[in-house]
Amino acid sequence: MLEVSQRGQNMPVSPFRKLAPYAEAARLQGKIVYPLNIGQPDIETPPAAMAAMRSADVRVLGYTHGAGTESYRQKLAAYYQRANLPVQAKDIIVTTGGSEAILFALLTCLNPGDELIIPEPFYGTYTAFAIAAGVTIVPVTAHIENGFALPPLAEFERVITPRTRAILICNPSNPTGYVYSRAELESILGLCHAHSLYLLSDEAYREFCYDAPYVSALQLAGAEQHVVVVDTISKRYSACGARIGALVTLNQQVYNAAFRFAQMRVSPPGLGMLLAEAAADLPESYFDESKAEYQARRDLTVARLRAMPGVVCPRPGGAFYVLAHLPVDDTEAFGQWLLESFSYENQTLMLSPANGFYQTPGLGRQEVRLAYVLNRTDLDAAFTCLEHALLAYPGRTEPLPAAGTNTTLALTL
Amino acid sequence: MLEVSQRGQNMPVSPFRKLAPYAEAARLQGKIVYPLNIGQPDIETPPAAMAAMRSADVRVLGYTHGAGTESYRQKLAAYYQRANLPVQAKDIIVTTGGSEAILFALLTCLNPGDELIIPEPFYGTYTAFAIAAGVTIVPVTAHIENGFALPPLAEFERVITPRTRAILICNPSNPTGYVYSRAELESILGLCHAHSLYLLSDEAYREFCYDAPYVSALQLAGAEQHVVVVDTISKRYSACGARIGALVTLNQQVYNAAFRFAQMRVSPPGLGMLLAEAAADLPESYFDESKAEYQARRDLTVARLRAMPGVVCPRPGGAFYVLAHLPVDDTEAFGQWLLESFSYENQTLMLSPANGFYQTPGLGRQEVRLAYVLNRTDLDAAFTCLEHALLAYPGRTEPLPAAGTNTTLALTL
Repeated sequence: MLEVSQRGQNMPVSPFRKLAPYAEAARLQGKIVYPLNIGQPDIETPPAAMAAMRSADVRVLGYTHGAGTESYRQKLAAYYQRANLPVQAKDIIVTTGGSEAILFALLTCLNPGDELIIPEPFYGTYTAFAIAAGVTIVPVTAHIENGFALPPLAEFERVITPRTRAILICNPSNPTGYVYSRAELESILGLCHAHSLYLLSDEAYREFCYDAPYVSALQLAGAEQHVVVVDTISKRYSACGARIGALVTLNQQVYNAAFRFAQMRVSPPGLGMLLAEAAADLPESYFDESKAEYQARRDLTVARLRAMPGVVCPRPGGAFYVLAHLPVDDTEAFGQWLLESFSYENQTLMLSPANGFYQTPGLGRQEVRLAYVLNRTDLDAAFTCLEHALLAYPGRTEPLPAAGTNTTLALTL
Repeated sequence: MLEVSQRGQNMPVSPFRKLAPYAEAARLQGKIVYPLNIGQPDIETPPAAMAAMRSADVRVLGYTHGAGTESYRQKLAAYYQRANLPVQAKDIIVTTGGSEAILFALLTCLNPGDELIIPEPFYGTYTAFAIAAGVTIVPVTAHIENGFALPPLAEFERVITPRTRAILICNPSNPTGYVYSRAELESILGLCHAHSLYLLSDEAYREFCYDAPYVSALQLAGAEQHVVVVDTISKRYSACGARIGALVTLNQQVYNAAFRFAQMRVSPPGLGMLLAEAAADLPESYFDESKAEYQARRDLTVARLRAMPGVVCPRPGGAFYVLAHLPVDDTEAFGQWLLESFSYENQTLMLSPANGFYQTPGLGRQEVRLAYVLNRTDLDAAFTCLEHALLAYPGRTEPLPAAGTNTTLALTL
């Protein structure tokens, strides 16, 4: 009998796409659906970078070096150096998005059956990469009560086994928006030293820190042998479709092995690399505007959510997500209900149920991830929908607020 | 102790790159080095397709559907339909080059430890994909004496075990240029039916068949459940750097599982997809010119090689490679000697030693792959270098021809 592989059967449907068919149906019914479910920034891709890509003199769009063009790696190294990371071009492998960097990191640092510790909630797609690489994810749970800070080291130590090879963090975190402090990073790197583990650091959102300067794992003392950074231009320059990322490490053995995996697919996307090279030249002030915009959205998001009775929303320091607790029985059912059975002034919203971000069964059922990647007007309208929806949803788990007791609600109703 | 994974250690250095440092050194010495080692076409990327990509109205370069944009898949389906393949948009997953299609096919069709039969010599990078996917390649040897035709089915049957899950062919073949006949394809598909195996067909060079119309594995009766085609625009439109390929199958179970792997990396490269979409619109006549050019080069290549004493060169029906036997002790040593110790009128050439295309140890030591991806003037100059080199090489395994007995040689010396 012909059957697809076990790993093919095990591969999860993307948690971001589960509600997609319902959203499509809602749109076909003429509803406006605000997509707060996916981290697709609405900010314009830098026109100067697009223009440079378009005007590049390309007669034959050929393969490049497997680690990316020398010119782009030089400029990317300069970008890191401006951020005080001790990175040279020779430490960089340009990858097809951050995705490929994650895959190469797992293939390079872990053998099939090895264990990878990740604080949960975590980016749901890590599960897919782990299945593809034959690696077992061991979660350590972070909690909403302290804003999803790094769990105590003892929690990590409790799950370390002889098969543990690495710890993966996402900093700033997708899906929580939490930004690890230098002290937290030092403590987790210390643990990696003590147990001979790699520290894989997904720094996709490095430019989006609102309350304190960003600290990269590569800036820590003792990072050389242990740290592998995965990075991407997707969010930084609002260029998700370019599919340009990077694996960065000062560990020569890791670099060499990852490079052999990179040679497998000959070279990263050439047109995207032209765009990325021009973007790497943008002045640091480029981020001022987009960061200010995201910060304003973050503030709006937190304010609106906190004003809704029964909603718990930490104030995330980075990325463009919040992970909030909602007073509902099940956010997956609620998300589907929002699209199928609810509308407010013919509008509704799409969110990411947080169960897709937890590996431990049962966790996250009352939590959602919301991406603040819409302009503030739309974002505000989306939250007004959410506010009304939480009052109308049959599966609400907390008593409705008494009429007139909640001023915010009174204002917006 | 921190150590990279076993698979990371096992990953081979790309066989195409082994001689690269010597070529670099030769160029630094001022030598002209003709690169016959890599299948990087010199044909211009279609200007109309590049222009369409450049002028596309893109404000936010965002993620697309994981299987590629609907518009490109529609146009690619139309391209296949023009070639009489029963393919619709829903059967296509757009991938990051043919490379990613190969990886997804292996991950989807085989479990770790499963066996994949490939006629050797084969594209050396398949080894890397097999290591990444944890799959064991079992070679069945094809022979230069009959131009690397499909080995007898009995040879395949001899190596089929309970772990065998698929047969992978490359048609037209990289590295041999051999084009499988319809009868050969039917026989191998029959074997797959008999033993419940997938037939993975790498059709990267489908547009480059010089002596007979091309037959795709997807055109065969009984292909539906068994055939998975991996394809790419790299060679077809001289757009290797776009990194756009496709996985095509009519098997819905395989499609669905492969799509879940595709969701892992969110979407294929967006700019390359714009280029590919415009290229898919090119009239069929587009290929006339490039095909005629490659055919003329093939004829030149075969004629020049056959005129060299001791060289055996089949006449390949497709792709842009020949796999030839040279009268030397070891083509890897010869390839290095060409770059380090030889020049003719300050020119030399870079070739691919064929040992990188065989899995069976010891095979291919006297064979090389030559890619005819240079214009005919350069190609001719490269062969003149080779001709002189074969006379001068200390490791020659056959007696030198007596002076004056070889007219071709007399003419060019």
